[in-house]
Amino acid sequence: MRVMGVDPGLTRCGVAVVEGRPGARPSLVAVGVVRTSPDMPHEFRLLRLEEGLTEWYEEYRPEALAIERVFAQHNLHSVTGISQAAGIAMLIGARHDTPVELHTPSEAKATITGSGRADKKQVAAMVARILGLAAPPRPADAADAVALAITHLWRGGVQAKYAQAAAAAARRRVS
Amino acid sequence: MRVMGVDPGLTRCGVAVVEGRPGARPSLVAVGVVRTSPDMPHEFRLLRLEEGLTEWYEEYRPEALAIERVFAQHNLHSVTGISQAAGIAMLIGARHDTPVELHTPSEAKATITGSGRADKKQVAAMVARILGLAAPPRPADAADAVALAITHLWRGGVQAKYAQAAAAAARRRVS
Repeated sequence: MRVMGVDPGLTRCGVAVVEGRPGARPSLVAVGVVRTSPDMPHEFRLLRLEEGLTEWYEEYRPEALAIERVFAQHNLHSVTGISQAAGIAMLIGARHDTPVELHTPSEAKATITGSGRADKKQVAAMVARILGLAAPPRPADAADAVALAITHLWRGGVQAKYAQAAAAAARRRVS
Repeated sequence: MRVMGVDPGLTRCGVAVVEGRPGARPSLVAVGVVRTSPDMPHEFRLLRLEEGLTEWYEEYRPEALAIERVFAQHNLHSVTGISQAAGIAMLIGARHDTPVELHTPSEAKATITGSGRADKKQVAAMVARILGLAAPPRPADAADAVALAITHLWRGGVQAKYAQAAAAAARRRVS
């Protein structure tokens, strides 16, 4: 099972591709960020992000997308951009009939470190240890994307999501 | 000048196409809503909305998109969906190099009724009067989309936006 984790953002959108299965040690296929410049008009940032995430999708062909669920702790301005970035990642999943699942930051932290209140540094350190890397992936958004992908693999909620996606695709065809 | 107004939303996204120029009486070309079912998985709602707005765009080929700016009065759950719907409309504009402008609800209300605190019913009634319609467009989301398009025409900020879009397109080509 190959999962693409996405830590949504407009300035830096973390992306990671991880392979594994529930309970087993996962392996890192690729990790990085898609960046868009704050100097560009907002709509062109969205377009650039869509192009960048589509390139990732097409290069690695994940079987599922694990995206961070947007939460209230962000201020309104960042909620808008983060929601839109998450929406673009979801659109890419839907377009390719690839299951999409959202995970909250605390679900990812708890899955990776055992504590839902771990800080970013602890998460990054555990990600490195789990994957057998010499150092955590950088920047932090990239490490968060890895954590989301591992969370998805280890939580194993994938079969149910496949059934849901298949049903949705069927509904979409008849509508 | 033909403008497509978009009142972003997932369950009902208002869309209106209006023709006119600053200071003159505008004419309504088309008005309606794109609906997506709350029973569908979120990512397929986004995809359906993108398909629906693209159909509108391709049928009417507007020269500008006027989209409501998302604001803090919404609760977090609806901010996410509304932000994503607005982001999809912005993506469609960027893809076609069509200028995108955001207008706040109070800008639209003030432009249409003279008061930034007018209620939806007053806005809808004034929209009908401005366009010479026997009754306001329904549902309210459709009337709001008309109000956004008229706001865009009357505020006349379009030339500047064209220059901005052309500059952005140039930046995008060289990046």
